Amino acid sequence: MKRKYACDADRLLGALDEVSAFGRTAGGGVTRLAASREDGQARDWLRARLAEAGARVLIDAVGNMYGVFPWAGPDAPFVFAGSHLDSQPAGGRYDGAYGVVAALEAARAIARTTARGGPKPTRNLAVVNWTNEEGARFAPSTLGSAVYAGLVETEFALARADGTGITLGSALEDIGYRGGDAPPRSLAAYLELHIEQGPELEREGKTIGVVEGNWGTVKYVVEIVGEAAHTGPTAMARRRDALLPAAELILFARGLSDQTGGALLSSVGRLDVHPNSTNVVPGHVRLYAEFRDADANRLEDTRARFEARARALSTPSVSVALTRTVDRPAGAFDPALRALIEREAHGAGYATHRLATVAGHDSIPLRAVAPSAMIFVPSVGGVSHNETEFTPPEDLAAGADVLTRVLTRLMTS
Amino acid sequence: MKRKYACDADRLLGALDEVSAFGRTAGGGVTRLAASREDGQARDWLRARLAEAGARVLIDAVGNMYGVFPWAGPDAPFVFAGSHLDSQPAGGRYDGAYGVVAALEAARAIARTTARGGPKPTRNLAVVNWTNEEGARFAPSTLGSAVYAGLVETEFALARADGTGITLGSALEDIGYRGGDAPPRSLAAYLELHIEQGPELEREGKTIGVVEGNWGTVKYVVEIVGEAAHTGPTAMARRRDALLPAAELILFARGLSDQTGGALLSSVGRLDVHPNSTNVVPGHVRLYAEFRDADANRLEDTRARFEARARALSTPSVSVALTRTVDRPAGAFDPALRALIEREAHGAGYATHRLATVAGHDSIPLRAVAPSAMIFVPSVGGVSHNETEFTPPEDLAAGADVLTRVLTRLMTS
Repeated sequence: MKRKYACDADRLLGALDEVSAFGRTAGGGVTRLAASREDGQARDWLRARLAEAGARVLIDAVGNMYGVFPWAGPDAPFVFAGSHLDSQPAGGRYDGAYGVVAALEAARAIARTTARGGPKPTRNLAVVNWTNEEGARFAPSTLGSAVYAGLVETEFALARADGTGITLGSALEDIGYRGGDAPPRSLAAYLELHIEQGPELEREGKTIGVVEGNWGTVKYVVEIVGEAAHTGPTAMARRRDALLPAAELILFARGLSDQTGGALLSSVGRLDVHPNSTNVVPGHVRLYAEFRDADANRLEDTRARFEARARALSTPSVSVALTRTVDRPAGAFDPALRALIEREAHGAGYATHRLATVAGHDSIPLRAVAPSAMIFVPSVGGVSHNETEFTPPEDLAAGADVLTRVLTRLMTS
Repeated sequence: MKRKYACDADRLLGALDEVSAFGRTAGGGVTRLAASREDGQARDWLRARLAEAGARVLIDAVGNMYGVFPWAGPDAPFVFAGSHLDSQPAGGRYDGAYGVVAALEAARAIARTTARGGPKPTRNLAVVNWTNEEGARFAPSTLGSAVYAGLVETEFALARADGTGITLGSALEDIGYRGGDAPPRSLAAYLELHIEQGPELEREGKTIGVVEGNWGTVKYVVEIVGEAAHTGPTAMARRRDALLPAAELILFARGLSDQTGGALLSSVGRLDVHPNSTNVVPGHVRLYAEFRDADANRLEDTRARFEARARALSTPSVSVALTRTVDRPAGAFDPALRALIEREAHGAGYATHRLATVAGHDSIPLRAVAPSAMIFVPSVGGVSHNETEFTPPEDLAAGADVLTRVLTRLMTS
C-alpha cells in the first residue's frame, strides 16, 4: 500500500540525487563549500529547475537565491521556503540540500493544484537558497540569511575571507552569483525542512519533528598574552606563562556545565599555543570556548560568569581579553506555525515529536523579520556533518509531504 | 698593563673568529647544526689546527673528534678537554666552540712549555669535539658524549633522524665524519670551559664560574586519548574530552613549583590538540612537561607526584599515559677538580663564583666515566641560544687562561 503524498516523492528523491552529484565525495557525501565551484554548479542546477517550474529567479547582493512564484500579484505578501546548498567539508548530502529541493517540489505541487482549479493563492511563494549557512568556508555561519534579516551588513558579509584570503564577494563573483536583485520584502512566513542532525526522532520512533525552538549559543575567542622565555634559566617569578590562564578557563568552562548537571553544554575545542615548543614558556595562547543552553536565563548567567572569570585572570603580567564571536539567544519558533505543522502532519497520519535544535539554522535569523518554523525528519544514528549522514527515503518523502501541506494552507490563509 | 696569560689569548680570539665563519648568520651568530655541511667545515678546520699543533686526530663511530697529544706514552691515562662545535639554529658563536678552541690553545701552550724544558707530562691530553651536543637537529642532546660514556648505544645514536628523516649516521657519512677509531679509554679527568648562558657571573661581577653541579631535569610526553565528537548534539555525559586532563596537569605542574616557592622549575611548553576545531570535543592531546631542580630529592618527589597525578587522571573514558623522555639527575662535579679550578683562578688573580648549571652539557654524561668539571665565563645579559650571545674578549681570555693552568697541573699530577 503506497502512501499518497501531496508532492511528487519520486521526483524529490531524484532531484536530491542530482544535486548530490555536485561535490560528491568517494565516501558518499559532498564537499560543497559556500561559493565554491561545486556550489556554483549546484546553484546553476537549482536555477534551471526553478525556471523550468515557472519561477523567476532573483539573486541578491550576497548570493541568496529566490525562486519567485508571483501567484498573488505584486502587492501580496510572500511565504519563503528553503534552506541551503552549501555543505561542510566531507559533509552529508541531506543537510541543507534536502530543504531546498523539498521546497522546490512543494512549489511545483502547489502550482499544479492551482492550475487544476484549486483555490487561488493569496500569497506569493519563493523557494530560497541561503548563502554560506554552514560557516565552514566563511565565518560566521547563517551569513546570507542574517544579511536578509538585517542582522549583518552586506559589506561585512562580502568582506569575510576564507582560509586562503579569498573574500565571499570575490568568490561569489567567480561563480556568477554576486547578484544585484532586491529580494522580496513583505514576508508573512518562513518554513524550513531539515534533517534533525540528532538522535531524538529515531529514538522516539516518530517521523515528523516539530521544532519548538533553538538552544542559545555563545562562542568566545580568548586572547591570552604573556611572554615567551626559555624554560631553563628563567626564574618562575619572572615567567609570564599564557598557558596557565588557558588551563584555568578550560576547567572553569567545564565546571559551569557540571553545575547544571550537564544541561548547559560547554566546551573548549581549540587552543593555539605559541611558540608551542617543549622548552619555551608559552607567550601567547588563543582559546576558543562555546556554551549552548535551551534555557536563556542560564545561558545569560553563564556568559556573565565566564566573562567575569576571564577578566579576573587578566593581570599586568599576562593579559586575558575575550571577544564574543557568536551570541545567538535561545528562542522559540512561531507558535501558530508550529501548531499548523502539527495539525497537517497528524491529518496526513504522521507521528510527531516536539523538540529543540541545538545547532544553528537560517530559520533563526529569519525570525527577526517573519514568523518562522522548522520541520525535522529523522537522521539515522543522529549522525551529521559526516559523509555517512542518512535519512531513509520514506522519511524524506514524509517531510516534503508535510511541508507541501503546510505551504498549501499558508498560500490561501 | 697587559695581563700575562698562560696561553696565547690573541690566537684564541683569532681562532674563535675563524671557526665562527662556518655557518655565520647575518645577525652575527651561527647556524651550525650537528653533522651539517657547516659543521663539516668547522670539523675540517679543527682537524687541520689540531694536526698543525702536533695532535693525532681520531674520529669514533659517532663522529666524536679526539685530538690526541700522546706525551706520556701509550700506557698513561688521558685528560680530556673540550666541548662541541655544533650550534642551535641561529645560535650564538660562543656556545660550545669556545670550549673546543680554548682546549686547543691550552694544548699548544702545554706543548710549548714542555718543549722548553718544563716538567714532563705524566698524562696524555686529548682535545675533544663531541657530536650533537645541542640536540637541535637530532634528539636527544649530548648524544656523542653519552655514547662515549656508555650511556647510549652507538646504533641508537646513529639511527636518530632529523626533521627530514636523515639519520645521524648518514649525515656523518656525508660530511666524512663517521669514523672507525677507538677513542682513548683510560680517562683521568674531563674539563669543559663554557660560557655561563645565565646572568649570575655578570650580576656578581665575577670572571670565573666554578660549576658545582647541574640541576636535575625530568621531561615527559603525556598522551591523552578520548574521542572527538561534535560539541552541538553530544551530551556532556557522553563526551570523552582529552583537553580536560591536560588542563589539570598544566595547573598541577605549576602547583608543584609554587609549593617550593619557585625553587623547582616546572613548565608545560607544548600542547598538541586534535582535531583542534572550535566545535569538536578534543579527542587527542599530547602534552610536553618538564621539571628542573637543583635538589635531587625534591625532583625525585616531584617525579613521583606528577606521575601519580597523571595516572589518577586516567579513566576508562579518557586515558592518560606518560613517557619520561629525559631523566637527568641533579649531580655534583668532582670536588677535587672544583677545588683545583678555584685555586688556579685565585692564583692567577681572578674573582670566582660558585654556581650550578641549569642546562645540560657534555660534562654531565662524562661524569659516568671520569672525574669531570666545568669552568664558566660570563654571558652578557645571560643571553644564549641567540645570535646576540656575547662574552667580552678579556673574559674569554681569562677562561682559557684558567683552563690552561688547570690542565697544566693535571698533566703532571
